[in-house]
Amino acid sequence: MDSPMGNLPDFEKAHGLVSAIVQDASTNEVLMHAWMNETAWKRTLQEGRAVYWSRSRKALWRKGEVSGNHQVVREILVDCDGDSVLLKVDQMGGAACHTGRRSCFYHKVVGSSFRIISSPLFSPDDAS
Amino acid sequence: MDSPMGNLPDFEKAHGLVSAIVQDASTNEVLMHAWMNETAWKRTLQEGRAVYWSRSRKALWRKGEVSGNHQVVREILVDCDGDSVLLKVDQMGGAACHTGRRSCFYHKVVGSSFRIISSPLFSPDDAS
Repeated sequence: MDSPMGNLPDFEKAHGLVSAIVQDASTNEVLMHAWMNETAWKRTLQEGRAVYWSRSRKALWRKGEVSGNHQVVREILVDCDGDSVLLKVDQMGGAACHTGRRSCFYHKVVGSSFRIISSPLFSPDDAS
Repeated sequence: MDSPMGNLPDFEKAHGLVSAIVQDASTNEVLMHAWMNETAWKRTLQEGRAVYWSRSRKALWRKGEVSGNHQVVREILVDCDGDSVLLKVDQMGGAACHTGRRSCFYHKVVGSSFRIISSPLFSPDDAS
């Protein structure tokens, strides 16, 4: 049986911004981590495309608006306490990261150092 | 070639707390989302077991300390801007969520409702 959304996600508890984890719908690779305010959440549900809140620009961020590399949302899950959401997406253009890499998680910890484990698929200038 | 960790993760930029995404090392299922301060990060690296910062209790949280359901860390990745880390873990006891479920992400959005998609593996009282 389905239940009304109620306070999921719980924007009030999360001081206005919930954490958004973005995962490749096919491979489960984690592509990026972003933020959503309530408007971004509602737009994402309405449009079926990922819309975030940019903390640095203090503005809605329609992912791929400029580059065309948007994210088609296949599934959304909300966590137990309502302050984190998980988006399973199809990443258009192949890269989620502003550096042009598929995933933002490309620094692998190796002992007390890190190793860069992926290369940009295209010029970062085209990735916004 | 490996590089020194430098300011990765960037705790200063992240106002002391970075976001930690926790993924099953075998299946890539996202199990939970938590937080780390610099001490939690260093303990995790030292111990090879996940240590977080509990924002509600304002204390270090050695995951599974009480229940035995700790997380053995197999791989750690840091994102492009250093304010989010990804832990690939083996979840002892099968459940990461305090409700006794495998994953904290068990509310699936279905239209304007949600559906609970998993059941507790054991009593929540045993899951801390």
